[in-house]
Amino acid sequence: MFESAELGHKTDKAEYEAAVPPLRAELLDAQFDLLELKQFAVVVLINGIDGAGKGETVNLLNEWMDPRHIEAWAFDAPSSEEAERPFMWRFWRALPPKGKIGVLFGNWYSESIHARVHKICKRAELDQRLDAISRFEAMLVHEGVLLIKLWFHLSKSGQKARLKALEKNPKTRWRVTERDWKYYELYDRYRETAEHVLRHTSTGDAPWLIVDGSDERFRSLLVGRTLLDALRKRIESVQKGWVPRQIAAPLPPSLDNLNLLNSLVLSQEMSKKEYNELLEEYQGRLALLCRSEAFRKRSLVLVFEGADAAGKGGAIRRITAALDARSFRVVPVAAPTEEERAQPYLWRFWRHVPRQGKVTIFDRSWYGRVLVERVEGFCSEADWMRAYAEINDFEDQLIDAGAVVVKFWLAISADEQLARFKAREAEPHKRFKITEEDWRNRDKSGEYAQAVCDMVDRTSTENAPWTLVEADNKLYARIKILRTLCERLEAALG
Amino acid sequence: MFESAELGHKTDKAEYEAAVPPLRAELLDAQFDLLELKQFAVVVLINGIDGAGKGETVNLLNEWMDPRHIEAWAFDAPSSEEAERPFMWRFWRALPPKGKIGVLFGNWYSESIHARVHKICKRAELDQRLDAISRFEAMLVHEGVLLIKLWFHLSKSGQKARLKALEKNPKTRWRVTERDWKYYELYDRYRETAEHVLRHTSTGDAPWLIVDGSDERFRSLLVGRTLLDALRKRIESVQKGWVPRQIAAPLPPSLDNLNLLNSLVLSQEMSKKEYNELLEEYQGRLALLCRSEAFRKRSLVLVFEGADAAGKGGAIRRITAALDARSFRVVPVAAPTEEERAQPYLWRFWRHVPRQGKVTIFDRSWYGRVLVERVEGFCSEADWMRAYAEINDFEDQLIDAGAVVVKFWLAISADEQLARFKAREAEPHKRFKITEEDWRNRDKSGEYAQAVCDMVDRTSTENAPWTLVEADNKLYARIKILRTLCERLEAALG
Repeated sequence: MFESAELGHKTDKAEYEAAVPPLRAELLDAQFDLLELKQFAVVVLINGIDGAGKGETVNLLNEWMDPRHIEAWAFDAPSSEEAERPFMWRFWRALPPKGKIGVLFGNWYSESIHARVHKICKRAELDQRLDAISRFEAMLVHEGVLLIKLWFHLSKSGQKARLKALEKNPKTRWRVTERDWKYYELYDRYRETAEHVLRHTSTGDAPWLIVDGSDERFRSLLVGRTLLDALRKRIESVQKGWVPRQIAAPLPPSLDNLNLLNSLVLSQEMSKKEYNELLEEYQGRLALLCRSEAFRKRSLVLVFEGADAAGKGGAIRRITAALDARSFRVVPVAAPTEEERAQPYLWRFWRHVPRQGKVTIFDRSWYGRVLVERVEGFCSEADWMRAYAEINDFEDQLIDAGAVVVKFWLAISADEQLARFKAREAEPHKRFKITEEDWRNRDKSGEYAQAVCDMVDRTSTENAPWTLVEADNKLYARIKILRTLCERLEAALG
Repeated sequence: MFESAELGHKTDKAEYEAAVPPLRAELLDAQFDLLELKQFAVVVLINGIDGAGKGETVNLLNEWMDPRHIEAWAFDAPSSEEAERPFMWRFWRALPPKGKIGVLFGNWYSESIHARVHKICKRAELDQRLDAISRFEAMLVHEGVLLIKLWFHLSKSGQKARLKALEKNPKTRWRVTERDWKYYELYDRYRETAEHVLRHTSTGDAPWLIVDGSDERFRSLLVGRTLLDALRKRIESVQKGWVPRQIAAPLPPSLDNLNLLNSLVLSQEMSKKEYNELLEEYQGRLALLCRSEAFRKRSLVLVFEGADAAGKGGAIRRITAALDARSFRVVPVAAPTEEERAQPYLWRFWRHVPRQGKVTIFDRSWYGRVLVERVEGFCSEADWMRAYAEINDFEDQLIDAGAVVVKFWLAISADEQLARFKAREAEPHKRFKITEEDWRNRDKSGEYAQAVCDMVDRTSTENAPWTLVEADNKLYARIKILRTLCERLEAALG
């Protein structure tokens, strides 16, 4: 979930200084249009890790836009006026009217997260609160509010480095208190709770947008562009007379060339000799794991996604070679059949959910909804935006029933893909594997890359994380997949 | 919530026999259109009290329609196949494809309700499950499924009478087991749980429809008509090219002339002498209650709704006469101000939520959304359909914060209203109270009556029930209101 936010995005000074003036001008324009139209209000939620730039961002938005039409609210402990009324009362008071922007810093999420991190409330109680919040936010969206939920993230090492740096400088030393270090100690628990909260309240209508808070310039531009894009999109839709609530909030824009895919080193070394040794080792371990007593009460769901010719089939065969033929099924996913098209899109995957002691390997999967269907326009934006939450719910159900869910994205470079395409065309028995469509997909590689990054950010959860596999070298890729699989199974079977 | 279902609806034999043949023909036609279009599937959930006709209704639907295109499923304890997979797996298997109707008897609700009634799970755990169910159902609706959720209801005395009748007849005696009587003992708990479940899963997209199960003929016609109306509405919308998910499921049709309003005896007796004595008594009790130590930690929210000239103002004055002027506020609700129109519709009521120790009296209220705004078309059907759940959420929040919520509907007859209108026109100092609009509203009295009945059925909850007040006699009405208020406060302040 925080994968993209931990890549170490940075914006250099010159770039920043060139980008800010036009961005400010555009934000002011959009703010003016919003005010003129008076058709919807904007609510920006500011949440996240301490030190990730929440307060600075609120100040910045006030500085960049016309402060008369932007209302920032910081909520601390409730006053007696507030404490004697329902929990949401003070937030209702802070809602901006149509035409204005409200920035809510310390909002309806803060207390719930705090209570859970400090074990004041149970998980089920947290979920009750999150349910109430989701219903409230759905109401806001139905009433036409443009809701933008920003989560400011810092990695654990990033937070530590920040505190150390502040302490080192005599001018900023006072800013670091014992409380800060105490909070730092709680980092893992905070992160885990945050992940749960974000998962359960990220909907198609009101998704969370995660902001890498480590570099101030990058963070500022990202927030500014996100707000601008969302405003522009909504203003345009209102001007065209569309119903506001049908327009999904946008995902954050890509500001630099750094993303999950291109930060991978795709060509990794592995000799044939090393491969053969490791293959034998991991296949042996996998064979034992899947025949173990503990596995009889569990099941395994494997998901393989990746570009065409990335080597999914080859990797799958190295896994099935270690399994009992009676215990697994490989499900190749192509265009849905007529029977499948007559059902909700997840139906054809539910059919293949394994029972206890069994393995199902999906060669492509339900992620088609947010990959090919998104990029090719086979479903509407609202449809694929809601799919992230629906997919997470689906995998949660698998996991609750005892399944181990392991998901691989096989990444190859454009050059390697081209080489493999050509090789396939040359070999008669592999020629069927390459079609016109494969060539067309290559032209859309930018859109596919964006879809893959969004997919990983929105569906990589603690219980069902994505593993990105550098797959230019098939041998390396297969071993990484087998090793990951063995480790995940060993951890799950304890 | 079960108010309308306990009025004792009945259909006589002649009427039933005349109604069935055309209904069956229309249902078959609709079923055929559904199959031809193949654009959406229909899922009918059958839940409710034992003995309220669930099984009979499933049989009936099979008999009335073409059984080749209707699939009935009864779910009992899961098989080992099913138990080894996620909870929802067996329900996914039962989903009908587009063009078909699936009737699910004993479905994803049954286990959750059972677990809560038998205290196997906690309230917060139940809410977690209900949240998951709501998300699942929202997904189905987004995927285009027409979801019809039928809850079959019997009153406690109705259930007892049914068991006694079965036992008395030697031919049916075998049908009553010890288990039935054991379930009867749990009636109150079951009803309370059902109310909670229905409240939390009745959404604008997938509302529950409550079926009075006591009379077989009435019940059968109601289910048939409900299904037919829903099918026809959706088929029409698909044929017109509308997006299916924007069409709210319909509320049940009114089959007879029996509803919550016309089952009231509006003219009740009360002499002036009795009135004066009781007025003094209840005003005294109310004064003490609102000045009590216990009330300092609570608050009181009063809602007055009713037809024009029903006597809301007079009743409110009899209450405020007993209160400390510093402790209450009367909020007259008319058309929203410009400031209020710039906010979500509940905003203007949140403004007036009282703090502890205080009273707010709403002379008309947030129920305008589902009354005047519905009838006059000021908001869309989808908007007022979702409002029931939003209003229940709002009142839940008031109650959670310690408020006592008391809601009155003042009902007067058309004749009495006319007499009062004329009297007002004749009296110069009251003439301002009667406008052209009041006369117009009288013409829509049928639509208003339907809106009032739906409102009471959908927002009368255990914690915030509606009190219907027979108000042709103002004296009787005022005393009933004061007495209800005192009793509710006494119960709440313990």
